[in-house]
Formats: sequence, structure tokens, C-alpha cells
Amino acid sequence: MCENCVSLSPRGDKHAVEEGALLTPKFDASELITAVAVDAQDGQILMVAHMNQEALEKTLATGEAWYWSRSRGELWHKGDTSGQIQTVHDILVDCDQDCLILKVTVAGDGGCCHTGRRSCFYRRVETPAKGPAALVFIEQPRSS
Amino acid sequence: MCENCVSLSPRGDKHAVEEGALLTPKFDASELITAVAVDAQDGQILMVAHMNQEALEKTLATGEAWYWSRSRGELWHKGDTSGQIQTVHDILVDCDQDCLILKVTVAGDGGCCHTGRRSCFYRRVETPAKGPAALVFIEQPRSS
Repeated sequence: MCENCVSLSPRGDKHAVEEGALLTPKFDASELITAVAVDAQDGQILMVAHMNQEALEKTLATGEAWYWSRSRGELWHKGDTSGQIQTVHDILVDCDQDCLILKVTVAGDGGCCHTGRRSCFYRRVETPAKGPAALVFIEQPRSS
Repeated sequence: MCENCVSLSPRGDKHAVEEGALLTPKFDASELITAVAVDAQDGQILMVAHMNQEALEKTLATGEAWYWSRSRGELWHKGDTSGQIQTVHDILVDCDQDCLILKVTVAGDGGCCHTGRRSCFYRRVETPAKGPAALVFIEQPRSS
């Protein structure tokens, strides 16, 4: 698919996946892997999205974050429209290789969320003793 | 299901989901929501797992992290076997409410990963110019 790209390796047994030194990502039933984008400087979680194999290969090849947009059903070069390109400095993978962390710096206005916030995680859950769980805003949209 | 519990609210329209003050989680086709557990003190990402509605309700009701184990197909009170109970101090939710961050402190030996590491993200992806993407270990198992 990607002639001059970094390649992904086929899945081995449990030991190879957990203690091996090859990237053998596990794509789920929808052929996606979860990706958590965090700020490379302060570690704040900015967004959680998904990648298919092509998005992961493009991310590895270009050093910029590509995702699979589940809502639009298409490959998504983050920032193409908004200018919020994510330059990827490091990628971490978890034990069973079904999740990635991307350490990124964000171009444009430095934001990540389409609502105008830096992070998509701008609300905290309040848990009363009983009744509906409420949300408290911890970040407001930046004024444009 | 949970008589004296904090309740979840039904999904509203896009504006209600993104700018509203009620927790209206979006469960995927497998009836799961992604949950990222981070250390409440230093913010390190410890693990990424999934919750079904019951796991989320139990987490809200008990203040300890419950997940749905996809591999075992059962409700999973994290730490029941290992002692690594996760006390939940804060929960954040993202814009479309299909992902949660749990800020936790971990009991027992303070670890999270079944491989004996603190975090499941103990390997960094190395990207050569071409060829198989390799992994570099950034955390080793603690000696027991």
C-alpha cells in the first residue's frame, strides 16, 4: 500500500506482542486502533480518535497525525481544514498493541477540538449521591 | 439497573451533547465507551480500557474503576485479583461523549499493567526511514 513506508509487522503470539520489539498493531472489528493525542510539552490529553492501517502508515511516514473519521467514514489528515496540524514527536504503544499514544505539537491556533477548545476533554463529571450525573465546564472556547 | 445510583441521561442533539451539562455517554456498536486511566498526581497515562453502561454506573456509584473486559467478556473490577484497585478522583468526558478520562490513584503495588509495569505504555515506536517499525522499551517490569 505504501511503497517506501515504515511497515507494520504481522501479529505474533502473546509473548511476542507484549514483550517483542516489533510494532504489530491490533485493529478491532471495525479495523481501527485507538489513538490518544497528548501535548508533547505538558502531557495534557487533547483528543482520542481512531486510525485504520492506512492512517497509521501515513502517520509513521509523514510525522503528522492522520486518523480515520468514523463520523465521515474517511481518512482524516488532522488540521487540513483548521490548520491544527499535529506534528508527532513520539508514539507509545500498549501491552496488547491495541492502543497508541501520540505526543504531538499542534500548529495553527494550537487547539484540537472542533468546539474551539484546546482539549476535547473540557468537562468534568459531577456525581451527586443520586440522580443525573452532571458536567462542569473546565475550559471555555477561545474567543476568535 | 442500579436503584440508588447516579444516573446517565439520554442522548440529546449535537448541541446538547457538546455544550450541555448532563452526562449522556455514547456507547459504540459493541455497547462500550473508551476509558483512559491516568495517574491523578502526575497525569501519566496508565491504561486504556472500555466500559459498558453497568461498568460506568458502578464506577460512578463506588468511586472505584470498573471496566468491561473484552477478552474475558465480563465485568471487571480492576484490582480485585491484583490488589491494584483504582480510586477515581475525577472523570472528564470529551466533546461527543464517547470517551472518558479517569484520574486515579492505584492501590496495591501501584501498578496497572498485567506485565508488571506501572503503565501499559512501556514501549516507544521507532520509525526507521524504511522497513519494520520497531519498539524500544521505556519501562521494565518491577522485580517482585
